[in-house]
Amino acid sequence: MTSVPSVSYSITVRLEVPAGATAVSSLTAAVEKAGGLVTALDVTGSGHARIQVDVTCAASSSAHAEEVVDALRLVPGVTIGKVSDRTFLVHLGGKIEITSKVPIRNRDDLSLVYTPGVARVSQAIAKNPEDARRLTIKRNTVAVVTDGSAVLGLGNIGAMAALPVMEGKAALFKRFAGIDAFPICLDTQDVEEIIQTVQHIAPVFAGINLEDISAPRCFEIEARLRKLLDVPVFHDDQHGTAIVVLAALINALKVVGKDLESIRVAMAGAGAAGHAIAQLLYAAGVRDIVASDVHGVIHPGRDDLAGVPTWYLECSNPRGVTGDLCDAVAGADVFIGVSAPNVLTAADVQTMAPDAVVFALANPEPEIQPQEAARYAAVVATGRSDHPNQINNVLAFPGVFRGLLDAQSRTVTTEMLTAAARALAATVTDDELNPAYIVPSVFHPGVADTVAAAVRGSVESIRRTAEETGEFPSIPV
Amino acid sequence: MTSVPSVSYSITVRLEVPAGATAVSSLTAAVEKAGGLVTALDVTGSGHARIQVDVTCAASSSAHAEEVVDALRLVPGVTIGKVSDRTFLVHLGGKIEITSKVPIRNRDDLSLVYTPGVARVSQAIAKNPEDARRLTIKRNTVAVVTDGSAVLGLGNIGAMAALPVMEGKAALFKRFAGIDAFPICLDTQDVEEIIQTVQHIAPVFAGINLEDISAPRCFEIEARLRKLLDVPVFHDDQHGTAIVVLAALINALKVVGKDLESIRVAMAGAGAAGHAIAQLLYAAGVRDIVASDVHGVIHPGRDDLAGVPTWYLECSNPRGVTGDLCDAVAGADVFIGVSAPNVLTAADVQTMAPDAVVFALANPEPEIQPQEAARYAAVVATGRSDHPNQINNVLAFPGVFRGLLDAQSRTVTTEMLTAAARALAATVTDDELNPAYIVPSVFHPGVADTVAAAVRGSVESIRRTAEETGEFPSIPV
Repeated sequence: MTSVPSVSYSITVRLEVPAGATAVSSLTAAVEKAGGLVTALDVTGSGHARIQVDVTCAASSSAHAEEVVDALRLVPGVTIGKVSDRTFLVHLGGKIEITSKVPIRNRDDLSLVYTPGVARVSQAIAKNPEDARRLTIKRNTVAVVTDGSAVLGLGNIGAMAALPVMEGKAALFKRFAGIDAFPICLDTQDVEEIIQTVQHIAPVFAGINLEDISAPRCFEIEARLRKLLDVPVFHDDQHGTAIVVLAALINALKVVGKDLESIRVAMAGAGAAGHAIAQLLYAAGVRDIVASDVHGVIHPGRDDLAGVPTWYLECSNPRGVTGDLCDAVAGADVFIGVSAPNVLTAADVQTMAPDAVVFALANPEPEIQPQEAARYAAVVATGRSDHPNQINNVLAFPGVFRGLLDAQSRTVTTEMLTAAARALAATVTDDELNPAYIVPSVFHPGVADTVAAAVRGSVESIRRTAEETGEFPSIPV
Repeated sequence: MTSVPSVSYSITVRLEVPAGATAVSSLTAAVEKAGGLVTALDVTGSGHARIQVDVTCAASSSAHAEEVVDALRLVPGVTIGKVSDRTFLVHLGGKIEITSKVPIRNRDDLSLVYTPGVARVSQAIAKNPEDARRLTIKRNTVAVVTDGSAVLGLGNIGAMAALPVMEGKAALFKRFAGIDAFPICLDTQDVEEIIQTVQHIAPVFAGINLEDISAPRCFEIEARLRKLLDVPVFHDDQHGTAIVVLAALINALKVVGKDLESIRVAMAGAGAAGHAIAQLLYAAGVRDIVASDVHGVIHPGRDDLAGVPTWYLECSNPRGVTGDLCDAVAGADVFIGVSAPNVLTAADVQTMAPDAVVFALANPEPEIQPQEAARYAAVVATGRSDHPNQINNVLAFPGVFRGLLDAQSRTVTTEMLTAAARALAATVTDDELNPAYIVPSVFHPGVADTVAAAVRGSVESIRRTAEETGEFPSIPV
């Protein structure tokens, strides 16, 4: 692991040192010598003989942060006080809050927003349920639903431990798309109970964002909820990732001068994300996808295919490749990994077709370190924020839901996902496009708006077609 | 009904009239003649011959608002434009929103509040679930749960139509106690499904506020959830009302110089609120409670007691009263109605003991009009905001939950409710106390803080006792 100091491992150390010309510089030097990065340095108290200093510095891991503190202990005359962890500080009390949009200053306000005034609003909705989208929060509200079974790369840590992630997601929904999202962390991992619970709480929401639910349960939960609910259901780990990968691939192929229809794609990982990526690539025109799981290339001759989605047997591996990941990678134009750290070597990349594209998306450690992949690949992307071309779901889900909510869509279809991916790809102009810039930064202005407009357009187009033909397409699962 | 114009029936009428010295006064006169009240009058456009005016006025009902518009139509030369309803305007898009408490300005912020930083916070909670109260929104978050089966006085209007009420409740939670409350409107009215759903979504919340769930289902739902969950479960329609009634009664008895232990109480209504009020009064020392439902006084000789809580047979009606409400009211010191409009007459009140206290709480129309009751009663209270002594749950639930959350209580007990009621009563000082001021205004500063402190103190006292004896009391249901 080639880690660099990051604010996500940032600490603030309160300490005292003897007053003197080199007091502060000795602290900075100690941190830097230990490989840390000083990001702030406040003298918070001063006396004739000693000064109190808050040193904030970034480390590359929790262990490294302790090493930095140990280094500070060696500064002559130092007394170390409280050590605060900035990541934990920012989480104290949670990251979101619920606020009132209406003033409640006096009895008149109260009688407008609560009884007796509110009774007329309730009666209007009872008479015409569609009015709920006009007169309540439903219009702009999304549930972020998890059972805590596959949280980040941490595995099955449960509902309560998943809550900080879901709160973060809700904060991102607001920051990037103005959407009110609320975390629903379920105290059950039973598929039937999850489906029933989401169905029961659905009235308040105009969209359901499933999050960090493990495969293959997530496939059934999503498919069943889509049939039961009249609001869009979107598993971000699957479809959010798929949208960003397709967008990145569209741009990577522009860089190397290839097209979706003629490339060979080797994939590592056939879980929630892998399955959704493969399906979306297929829907976008890619015809030669060879996927591998831990047992090797997925092909009909294997006798251990229980749990592998049937889609792979129907739509992937047209050349009947067998063997392991290396066999799939040899000659491939594109590698997409959503699997495990270090399953790909530079030698493997060397066997790929010229101008190879490598997306090594395993988190936090990729299938191959990007600098290794870059020895033989023309374009490299990862899921990491400390390397160019970060494949980050934040590029997709805010805009996708913004578009779905604005269009009051009752479903999500492959067409909408493809439209989102193409719009996202197009936010990188031809002038900007290069091997180190195939996707925009998540802070690039207008990304969510552009994606939202594409999704809204897709919903409206599908709605028009549906009105003409009476048929409404739905996402294949 | 003796209605007065209210902002909850407030409309804004855009109209044009010929310009002239009396143009505006003719509009005001028309509104007032129709019984409306002009609350704002803006000239929004002007020409040589005509002016455009927005007339905002309060009416006493929707029908009355239409009469006011009709009266405006008769003003010479007027052209009526758009008529807007202020109550609906204030509800557009809903009344609450979810906001981020943390800045997300750049990649560093992102890596603190989301991946990769958030992973360490999740791991900390996985290791020690109690940390969720420190590092997530759980500490300050309450679910406002309804199945829409008994919404205000509107009956079973369903989950979606209940949402504006639950949003209002959430807004009040924030306004009066700084609590983050989120509406959970359930698409089921099955007792088992409600219990299971609330259990499944419980991890995010530090308290459950049940709301507008019909009796007798609400009794079982509350009792079962109390056993299943490790956070307090509180049905506001029951216990919030009971707290405010007990507080008001304590003060009313001070006014008339009687005490809880020796009074006779006649109650009309044995539903959710009635049952909880009777129980809390009993717990506070009242020994002579005679309750009536639609079939008359509740006594063991009746053969139609299915659905009547057994509590009534065990703890009420010590003198074995039979007959109807009049028989219970005769000689009673206190009447408490949570039943239906106009079931009590001034003649009934005349049969009560001297210095009678009448709480006619049916909403929106009380059991007896307050001015009628006041002919023979010394103290009168209602649920209405247009009369002194409003028995309003807003006096109780914000402070109760603030106290429960601050003390990290895992339950609610009768002691806590009684402590809340006594604290609420004490917010009215002896100098302030009079027959028209037995409860403070909901906007009286410090009410929620005072109630919260009492509840917190009660939780801590019970916790100490429990640590000593190993027994933890729970609310009787």
